[in-house]
Amino acid sequence: MNQVPAPSAEPPSTSFDALGVDATGVPLIEQPHHDSGPCFVAGDAPALDARSTLRVWVPIAYPASALALRTVSDGEIRTSELHVAAQDSTGTWWEAELSLTNPVMPYRFCVLAPQGSVSPSGAAVPSYAWLTAAGLVPWDVSDATDFRLLAHEPAPDWVDDAIVYQIFPDRFSRSTRMPLDADGRPAPADLPCWAVPMAWEDEPAMHGELTGRQFFGGDLDGILERLDHIALLGANTLYLTPVFPAGSVHRYDASAFDHVDPLLGGDDALVRLSTALHERGMRLLLDLTTHHTGDTHEWFRAAQADPESTEAGFYLFEEHPHQYASWLDVPTLPKLDQRNAELRSRLTRGAGSVVGRYLSAPFAADGWRIDVANMTGRHGTVDLTHEVAREIRATMREVADSRGQSRAHSAWLVAEHGHDATADLAGDGWHGTMNYAGFTRPLWAWLADPESDLNWLGLPMTLPRLPGTSIWRTLRDYNAQMPWPSRAHSQNQLSSHDTPRTRTVVGSRERQLAAVAALATLPGVPTVFAGDELGAQGENGEHSRAPMPWEAIDRGDGERIDLGILEATRLLLGLRRELVALRRGGLRWLHAGTDALVYARTHPDGDVLVHLARGAHDEIVIGTDSLPGAPCATVHTEVGGANARHDRGVLRLDASDAGASLIRLDSGA
Amino acid sequence: MNQVPAPSAEPPSTSFDALGVDATGVPLIEQPHHDSGPCFVAGDAPALDARSTLRVWVPIAYPASALALRTVSDGEIRTSELHVAAQDSTGTWWEAELSLTNPVMPYRFCVLAPQGSVSPSGAAVPSYAWLTAAGLVPWDVSDATDFRLLAHEPAPDWVDDAIVYQIFPDRFSRSTRMPLDADGRPAPADLPCWAVPMAWEDEPAMHGELTGRQFFGGDLDGILERLDHIALLGANTLYLTPVFPAGSVHRYDASAFDHVDPLLGGDDALVRLSTALHERGMRLLLDLTTHHTGDTHEWFRAAQADPESTEAGFYLFEEHPHQYASWLDVPTLPKLDQRNAELRSRLTRGAGSVVGRYLSAPFAADGWRIDVANMTGRHGTVDLTHEVAREIRATMREVADSRGQSRAHSAWLVAEHGHDATADLAGDGWHGTMNYAGFTRPLWAWLADPESDLNWLGLPMTLPRLPGTSIWRTLRDYNAQMPWPSRAHSQNQLSSHDTPRTRTVVGSRERQLAAVAALATLPGVPTVFAGDELGAQGENGEHSRAPMPWEAIDRGDGERIDLGILEATRLLLGLRRELVALRRGGLRWLHAGTDALVYARTHPDGDVLVHLARGAHDEIVIGTDSLPGAPCATVHTEVGGANARHDRGVLRLDASDAGASLIRLDSGA
Repeated sequence: MNQVPAPSAEPPSTSFDALGVDATGVPLIEQPHHDSGPCFVAGDAPALDARSTLRVWVPIAYPASALALRTVSDGEIRTSELHVAAQDSTGTWWEAELSLTNPVMPYRFCVLAPQGSVSPSGAAVPSYAWLTAAGLVPWDVSDATDFRLLAHEPAPDWVDDAIVYQIFPDRFSRSTRMPLDADGRPAPADLPCWAVPMAWEDEPAMHGELTGRQFFGGDLDGILERLDHIALLGANTLYLTPVFPAGSVHRYDASAFDHVDPLLGGDDALVRLSTALHERGMRLLLDLTTHHTGDTHEWFRAAQADPESTEAGFYLFEEHPHQYASWLDVPTLPKLDQRNAELRSRLTRGAGSVVGRYLSAPFAADGWRIDVANMTGRHGTVDLTHEVAREIRATMREVADSRGQSRAHSAWLVAEHGHDATADLAGDGWHGTMNYAGFTRPLWAWLADPESDLNWLGLPMTLPRLPGTSIWRTLRDYNAQMPWPSRAHSQNQLSSHDTPRTRTVVGSRERQLAAVAALATLPGVPTVFAGDELGAQGENGEHSRAPMPWEAIDRGDGERIDLGILEATRLLLGLRRELVALRRGGLRWLHAGTDALVYARTHPDGDVLVHLARGAHDEIVIGTDSLPGAPCATVHTEVGGANARHDRGVLRLDASDAGASLIRLDSGA
Repeated sequence: MNQVPAPSAEPPSTSFDALGVDATGVPLIEQPHHDSGPCFVAGDAPALDARSTLRVWVPIAYPASALALRTVSDGEIRTSELHVAAQDSTGTWWEAELSLTNPVMPYRFCVLAPQGSVSPSGAAVPSYAWLTAAGLVPWDVSDATDFRLLAHEPAPDWVDDAIVYQIFPDRFSRSTRMPLDADGRPAPADLPCWAVPMAWEDEPAMHGELTGRQFFGGDLDGILERLDHIALLGANTLYLTPVFPAGSVHRYDASAFDHVDPLLGGDDALVRLSTALHERGMRLLLDLTTHHTGDTHEWFRAAQADPESTEAGFYLFEEHPHQYASWLDVPTLPKLDQRNAELRSRLTRGAGSVVGRYLSAPFAADGWRIDVANMTGRHGTVDLTHEVAREIRATMREVADSRGQSRAHSAWLVAEHGHDATADLAGDGWHGTMNYAGFTRPLWAWLADPESDLNWLGLPMTLPRLPGTSIWRTLRDYNAQMPWPSRAHSQNQLSSHDTPRTRTVVGSRERQLAAVAALATLPGVPTVFAGDELGAQGENGEHSRAPMPWEAIDRGDGERIDLGILEATRLLLGLRRELVALRRGGLRWLHAGTDALVYARTHPDGDVLVHLARGAHDEIVIGTDSLPGAPCATVHTEVGGANARHDRGVLRLDASDAGASLIRLDSGA
């Protein structure tokens, strides 16, 4: 059932599984291909009036008779024919030119074939089909999944090469500056009354009122002491959940934005950490709540004290002082009113705002992750989310200009968004999102422990795990709704401080290996939640916030941590650093079956073929002469139970258990 | 291959054709269903904070174990379980409540079933699937095709019952007021120098410089004299292409907006026509170019004469006075700059604007069709289309308020849009579009004359016709991207002044019957381009603008006009007037095959089942016990070669040629 036949093999059965539920019935490997990577889009850097050359590769198996380009310029479609630019025994390269007349240029291709054509695998070839970022579809589709070129200023260049390590500061590492009591619990002089000091080895509560109060005492200098661990993993960017003073250990209920929490070491500690990171060539991403503050915030206290105060206009009082809009009706998190100009000026607008201040010296952060971005500025008939996002981008530009930073060194802006973020990712606001919908959830749904009843999709019932054919459609079609740069500059995470742990979701080392391989090889910035690399367990977000077991790490204690997954994470993230195709390549899907997914990251320096297995599966056969230019294949890496063999032009992929294999494809020329 | 099996019938083969290319593999008739019609959405009229009850019908064939509602409120998802509200031998009604917290409330349903379930037809039932306006999909999809409730002020109530007749004034009817020369050519005293007078029987040029100049002399009083023909057809709304003075017979190059073209009878004639229509209970839709004027427009002349003039700011001069942006670079159609406040005030903003003036007494038009709406206000980095649309809506509200009109009598706003309009149809601007992409083109692509090589999709090559399975996906999935009210209040047209004629596209009376049946029964306002009801031919938009052959119509001359299609058009449009389900019902797809499409318009007063055939096809069998409540079926109408029979709970649909049949489904209770 998992066979992708080489051109000479038997025709596939017509079951959906064998076809990967594709609308045409033509195996993926026989379909025309275009992606937004450098093999398929060439020309000037995207900018208004720039010209790009667009290329489509049509395998020899697909009898295309003509191709047309369709774009939308100033609201009207424009069409032109593609011409054949090159041809060899494996297929044909077609080309057309596109000028960027608008900041967002959607485009797609119409592919015609003679009526009644049949491909070598025996599939009926549609006489008429559209090729969009959601693949080949034999009927008229909307523009929603068109490829897109963007003339908006792109994300900073470093983001393409970023590998992020996420830290929840209270739980990562205590420095020696943190005073302890006799039982090893933190005892700082300024311990707030809400805090319940915990010993580092204690297990965090999973539910209940204690969750936000269990104070383990991790601090910024503690992080600084552990940068070797992070760098050794291959990560080059640190993402810290909030560092502002607050009424809880998660600090998403800030009580001030004008200084770093003294419990974390204060402003000086953040400067020390930032400096140390930059000295290593690493980057720092901070976390800001633009949607709300804590109810202990100085702004909210002023607002409650006086309905005529400036700050009273920052919030949405229904009845002053105790009735007000808040995040999911949690009263400790009063919602901000983004219509208020003074709020915007303090929070997001200009170099002097909170956003600007921490991007500037001496903090010199390299970007912001925006908490609850999906709800920021949204309230009833008000919808200012895009405006706030564009404003933060403008502030980032202003700070970068004042620091003399080129695009390569300016700041990254990532939106938290738990479901469909694509309508918020047009390219002029958030650079990307935390791609829960287009990465985390599909991977979980595929790799979930079949014995588990984790309710991992937020619905009011337990859900089944899904076959790779369904997963592939979400990975391809959902992500097709955002411009490629927005996907590439989004964070892919397998878990976070808000979710169960990867290992708990997938239930085995081998399935976690497949998950980490997806993280290291799919488009999007790999983001590792500290502890995942140790195979840490956690039933939900609270439970996942267990302190890092440094003693076990330092000792290499394979009883307490999974040394195998640690080594494999280093290996797989290292591959991303080694192989440019994994960082900057396009994406071509080659096979989708119940238990296996196969894709290539396409790049002029050599494609990389990735084979993910969620369990044992039969052999998948791919003739390298069905790939452009019949490349030379070299099996590069195998993890878990996945196997790849290359013999005289035939690539054979199978698995005895979950895992992944990577194959380098180098030009045969 | 076209069998929809009754529950007891043989399982279908798994070919795409038999399955209608649906992602689940479950026959449509066995799938859970929800639509935006009154059987499935009940409660308060949509408004902010209103509550609706949402219902999902799950056929007995589908083993659903649980259903969840997912909506997005203030940018965050909310989920809840549905409960069983009613159950009988045919299936189960599930229900949930939804509050409108935002002007646009997207929602969809998650449908779970036990692992390994098989439907009575033998289809594997997905254990997890989403039900959106694009049907049932067994993987995570984006929000793009979510059902939507809108709290925006809806289109006027009369639009739900409207049937539009489109007139190109120069070609419809000459009144006795038009002076003629000895050869029967118009000879008005004020004939402009560009005009080439034509005899009424002459054939219009298809191409070339004469096309816009051939002056046949139709006028508004000529229309007034022919209202009986229009009313007899079943139409109750007249849509006139522009009536302003211009530099051509199409008048899309207006030379003024402040009076009606004297060649058409001037302001007084428009008032006479409007009054006569309203006396008959009919409505009047006018046509405005907000994207451009003619280069002979008084504003453009003032702009060219003086770069410092107010009007110079209305246009986009690249180099004054002769280099300027224009519609598709046609210099006679200079593009307007919607950033200019004075332009907006004259054209679209407020009761005194062009938009407002013709909606007010004495003209009292009932709505505007906006020409080139898709490009209006779009130019490079500028995109003001939505703002202009909202502004026109506000002007409509202002005029309606000043006339004391309730929503039921206020104005309709329709956007011309030739391709994907869905991103412009959020509900707060245009009420609808001319639905070329979601109606005209799919119908053409299905019903096209197989012998013809008309290039009917605007691409630079001739295109094949497409099977019903593809057509169904466009009709369903493309239209799913707009809110239901935006679809229902869009114009469906089989041809227009900009296209070939329906009969020329489809090539036979029988296929035209199928097309008119689709027009009369699918969601959207049926719009007949004058002449289509006679089986008129036309190779392109210019050629389709032939004058109406009144002599032949009056004589009932079956040699010159197709009396069969005339009678059938009256019959089919009459059915829409007779059966409320066709005007206000929801839509449920029941079958999609290569040559047949079957759907029900769902309504509490009784569903109507529609069977469209593009040619001979095998019998399709539908057990009425597979429909909610096992309704009583009555074959109501058959046209062309389509047949329907009902015998002891089994509906049998087949065809010997193209055509359509309609079956009433009345509650068995």
